Amino acid sequence: MKFWKQLDRKTIYQSDWIEITIDKVELPDGTIIDNFELMHYPHSSVGVVAVNEKEEILLVRAYRYLHESFDWEIPGGVCENEEHHVDAARRELLEETGYTCDVISPMVKFYPHKATCDQKYYTFHAEGITRKTDDFQEMEISEVAWKSPDEILKMIETGEINESLSLVALQHYFLHRKH
Amino acid sequence: MKFWKQLDRKTIYQSDWIEITIDKVELPDGTIIDNFELMHYPHSSVGVVAVNEKEEILLVRAYRYLHESFDWEIPGGVCENEEHHVDAARRELLEETGYTCDVISPMVKFYPHKATCDQKYYTFHAEGITRKTDDFQEMEISEVAWKSPDEILKMIETGEINESLSLVALQHYFLHRKH
Repeated sequence: MKFWKQLDRKTIYQSDWIEITIDKVELPDGTIIDNFELMHYPHSSVGVVAVNEKEEILLVRAYRYLHESFDWEIPGGVCENEEHHVDAARRELLEETGYTCDVISPMVKFYPHKATCDQKYYTFHAEGITRKTDDFQEMEISEVAWKSPDEILKMIETGEINESLSLVALQHYFLHRKH
Repeated sequence: MKFWKQLDRKTIYQSDWIEITIDKVELPDGTIIDNFELMHYPHSSVGVVAVNEKEEILLVRAYRYLHESFDWEIPGGVCENEEHHVDAARRELLEETGYTCDVISPMVKFYPHKATCDQKYYTFHAEGITRKTDDFQEMEISEVAWKSPDEILKMIETGEINESLSLVALQHYFLHRKH
């Protein structure tokens, strides 16, 4: 199979966070797609599965403006300019929960929405967790809590945990823990 | 914690596939976000973990224009207008692989990119798989193959499978199969 051919590209919006382009594309059989909407992200995102000595996992309840909801998620967020993924993961863990970690190791990395977005999510496993401060980002997070693996598996079943960064990272951690 | 307040919304682009808005938002502490970019999707997407009697799983190698890559994924795609998710799942399975299924059941549903996009992904588990035709969508798919669970777990580790629809669906299937 041949690659699709880019005939034209228009940038319709650009900010520090996203560039949106509309491509005109020719398929191998000559079909033309006039408006192929593509989202380009200059920043990656990170998420952390932070595990304590009781094998509980640290979750945050994050406010999601678009959905007007408060959702249980793993701590995480967007990498700042020039910031390494692992540093972003440590920073987000501290900012969103008040906890630091001794050891942090990379797990799976993936594209949330590969067909039309190039943003990449990096997941980490953190151990040796210590409370450093009682403060956390109160504009975005309403609650911080330790949950057992069984509680989390149930929250996935009921849809209480329902976004890709948390799901991929938590499922990956559970599959590895059991192997 | 109070909800964030929408002060303004501008639609900067709209097509059959996506509406892109820029919101002006006030946070509870009075901070103003001038440009909060949000992607609204009128269509959901679906993905199918199709399993045969040898416990092998059907994967497709899909062309991804944005990345100029051919990636191993579960069969899946976007729901058409008014189409029920389960019908979309059966249709995509047939179109992308040439196979039909006897039994199809819903698994996890989730948001790939919850902070800024409202698109939802629905995953299904399919059994009683029969080859109906040798044809598949050759403009999008270069290869169709059965893979064993061990091969798939390895492809997740190496990053050969690297997008959220496949990762969430496959990992969910593996976690359930083992319980």
